[in-house]
Amino acid sequence: MKNNVGREIPDEILKEKGYQSFQTVDFGNSVIQRDAPKVHATTENNKVVDSLQDVVLKTVKDGMTISFHHHFREGDYVFNKVMRLIIDYGFKNLTLAPSSLTNVMNEIVVEAIGKGVVTNITSSGMRGTLGDAISHGALKNPVIFRSHGGRARAIESGKIKIDVAFLGVPNSDAMGNANGMDGKTAFGSLGYALMDAKYAEKVVLVTDNIKPYPNTPASIKQTQVDYVVKVDAVGDPDKIGSGATRFTKDPKELKIAKTVNEVITHSPYFKEGFSFQTGSGGAALAVTRFLRQSMIANQIKASFALGGITKPTIDLLEEGLVQKVMDVQDFDEGAAISMHKNKNQQEIDASWYADPANKGAMVDALDVVILSALEVDTQFNVNVISGSDGVIRGAIGGHQDAATAKLTIISAPLVRGRIATVVPNVTTVVTPGDSVDVVVTEIGIAINPKRKDLLKLLTKIPGVPVLTIEEMQKKAQEKVGIPKQLEFTNRVVALVEYRDGSLIDVINEVKE
Amino acid sequence: MKNNVGREIPDEILKEKGYQSFQTVDFGNSVIQRDAPKVHATTENNKVVDSLQDVVLKTVKDGMTISFHHHFREGDYVFNKVMRLIIDYGFKNLTLAPSSLTNVMNEIVVEAIGKGVVTNITSSGMRGTLGDAISHGALKNPVIFRSHGGRARAIESGKIKIDVAFLGVPNSDAMGNANGMDGKTAFGSLGYALMDAKYAEKVVLVTDNIKPYPNTPASIKQTQVDYVVKVDAVGDPDKIGSGATRFTKDPKELKIAKTVNEVITHSPYFKEGFSFQTGSGGAALAVTRFLRQSMIANQIKASFALGGITKPTIDLLEEGLVQKVMDVQDFDEGAAISMHKNKNQQEIDASWYADPANKGAMVDALDVVILSALEVDTQFNVNVISGSDGVIRGAIGGHQDAATAKLTIISAPLVRGRIATVVPNVTTVVTPGDSVDVVVTEIGIAINPKRKDLLKLLTKIPGVPVLTIEEMQKKAQEKVGIPKQLEFTNRVVALVEYRDGSLIDVINEVKE
Repeated sequence: MKNNVGREIPDEILKEKGYQSFQTVDFGNSVIQRDAPKVHATTENNKVVDSLQDVVLKTVKDGMTISFHHHFREGDYVFNKVMRLIIDYGFKNLTLAPSSLTNVMNEIVVEAIGKGVVTNITSSGMRGTLGDAISHGALKNPVIFRSHGGRARAIESGKIKIDVAFLGVPNSDAMGNANGMDGKTAFGSLGYALMDAKYAEKVVLVTDNIKPYPNTPASIKQTQVDYVVKVDAVGDPDKIGSGATRFTKDPKELKIAKTVNEVITHSPYFKEGFSFQTGSGGAALAVTRFLRQSMIANQIKASFALGGITKPTIDLLEEGLVQKVMDVQDFDEGAAISMHKNKNQQEIDASWYADPANKGAMVDALDVVILSALEVDTQFNVNVISGSDGVIRGAIGGHQDAATAKLTIISAPLVRGRIATVVPNVTTVVTPGDSVDVVVTEIGIAINPKRKDLLKLLTKIPGVPVLTIEEMQKKAQEKVGIPKQLEFTNRVVALVEYRDGSLIDVINEVKE
Repeated sequence: MKNNVGREIPDEILKEKGYQSFQTVDFGNSVIQRDAPKVHATTENNKVVDSLQDVVLKTVKDGMTISFHHHFREGDYVFNKVMRLIIDYGFKNLTLAPSSLTNVMNEIVVEAIGKGVVTNITSSGMRGTLGDAISHGALKNPVIFRSHGGRARAIESGKIKIDVAFLGVPNSDAMGNANGMDGKTAFGSLGYALMDAKYAEKVVLVTDNIKPYPNTPASIKQTQVDYVVKVDAVGDPDKIGSGATRFTKDPKELKIAKTVNEVITHSPYFKEGFSFQTGSGGAALAVTRFLRQSMIANQIKASFALGGITKPTIDLLEEGLVQKVMDVQDFDEGAAISMHKNKNQQEIDASWYADPANKGAMVDALDVVILSALEVDTQFNVNVISGSDGVIRGAIGGHQDAATAKLTIISAPLVRGRIATVVPNVTTVVTPGDSVDVVVTEIGIAINPKRKDLLKLLTKIPGVPVLTIEEMQKKAQEKVGIPKQLEFTNRVVALVEYRDGSLIDVINEVKE
């Protein structure tokens, strides 16, 4: 049976794993009994342990679920340090439940899979050699991909039950009061890790920077932490701020960014008190710059900017063009270190950011979001997780979550090299077309036909052609031709959850 | 059978209510499965309701547990507004579980008890007509008195299961992002209320000040809140800051304060990086002033000040004499409004402050605390809940919790009018003598014999006589004579929990 984005979800998956098939983006309001950890109380005044080995041996057992955060991105040392020990000690059948997996983690996860140490993974995404290995059937059980909001939901409802969370932090006192904004490896908001700190049975902080007690502001609190492990270094400061946050000079990206800004400013949402999420990446930063000019020209201020935050967004805050920055993660050093001085830069956890199963997430109040795509199809469905070769090479991130905005703009080049971005059918549906409003490419924009209101407003923008999504897809096809049909085996290697926990798609093993 | 502070706890109470009898202040480390609420999710963007009536009718049912906080102290309007409706709608058999009860709440609680609306109460304390009514057997079931840390423990472990929390706040946005530090009724830290916001099944914010969305800093978060009720006024700003926080000019209080400071500065804990809690009350403020002078003179700085915070403590922070203020509540306007500008004034919840059943409370790291007493006896046991007439007229507050400090000083006048403070046996044991180190009165100090180290250090203080506690008690008796033996009936009207949840004493109905 096909689900409501036309994807075949095998019956046995639905039954065995107790899944519902994706139905609708308007999935209504759930009533959920929150999960809670078992707490081992202590009145000790020092939780510092020098030996990561000892802590791993004390806390990890075969079959457990262990977690990490990805706030250090490609500069992360903690994941590899911990996983090295876990592999060397020969633990088996672990479930890996990080907030996401970055490239620097690939090699050791592949090794852990090969040795039977890791047999289950849930993550926002993966890339490189790990994505390749998974797509070729390396892991025993299917990976479960969840959005940032979906992970928060799964943790809060007990679907993900973390036994031990290993959380790298750029500072902590001896009791576990820690934040992400101080120290040489500061990364800013601890947004994703705050979920693990609240819900994991055992919380292990790993830091290279022990501060005097009590360390404040305490984003993670001593009441949540079991061990503080002192190591030489938790990360490489130069690799925490993603290179992808540099401002683009590429003319195509600039054109797309300018068009995105035109779409925003011609929409009914561009008015005093509007809110937006732009994300990272060259085009996104350029959008922020163009948007700034339009805000000044039109004397319009935003109530809040949301999501992964970059320095240009902080500049808007400091200029008074944005009232509040609601910050679940920071993509560059400028955004990370500004948390200290800007009291209107509020750290939020992944639940507050995007969990549909709580009493209101920030994304529910979002007016405008700009999101990327590996592929978008003629039903406006978006794929951000698998390549055109069928191999896993991306992450859901907050894509499904932020697409709940009143105006969801997909910004992407029409083609990338010899590969079309706008396609008849995306390889994997991550975000349903029902939550996408406008697709912006360098050749013009395509508007979701269900948004007749936008069709009227956005056709008068000078120099911005409006195409149907089918026309856009054909233009792409004219450029790069029709690709060879992908070939997959029957084996499912990954499940893609929609943010409500239903299955929106599965990913099959690629045929060699 | 008598417990370890010599109090007879009726067997039927222990059995029926599943209590352990108090054993020891070193009760060890528990393993507790945390409780968690059932969450009704929403994606609505506005939770504001004009009618408190509607919300009360929607949320309250017979037999439920409802809660309030006492951060507005004697300036609270919210408690009376809500209770008026609850009484008028004729709800029955409710359990009242506020963080504490202030005098302004007395009349309506007595009425609610009389009408069978409230049949159970748990609180930090009570005074005036309510204490009188309870002591004369007005309530169907015994009141349970818990310390602030004990309440946090009880909530986190599910012993107190709050169905609806009505939380007054000086500001909130339409989704429930709120703090205690803005608005004309600002009271500062929301420390006690944060427990209710996290654990109650339904959270109702009541405010007179709706702020633009998103309101930050958000001490209470939209993810926790079901309704935001707009009312005309939540409190009387003039009555929030307690009158008890004015600086004393009373020579006896000044003498006691000076002696307390001598005890601190002659103790081994007065050194760089020490920590302290002074609390409120004229003598306490005077101690803070004397302590400041000693810190300057000796070039000693404190790592943190804890507990209920007053302006003089904030002055120390701003002078750099205290590194951090860990703030569970503020006793005056100066402390309340300074939270905004002082990033080293960290808001902490009651669990972090004092819960013995978590991964480390601030009180566990406390060096010096100054606490008050209604009575202290020759076993150093302290009573802060019942008067010498046996009638309930006080509150545990953080007394039991902070008494875990390395140096616990009880500061009190030897007698009050014709009533002795130092007595052979306290009317009710709230804080066991095992956690009390020094008693300071205007005639000198008494040192707990188990603290031989202190006995040596504190005997050389010029002008500060050291007495045995028995000598001190006799001095008091010489002044005021031997009081008539109190007469109680066999009926237990209140249970006094120790911070670990064991029963340290019971309070019986007074005989007319």
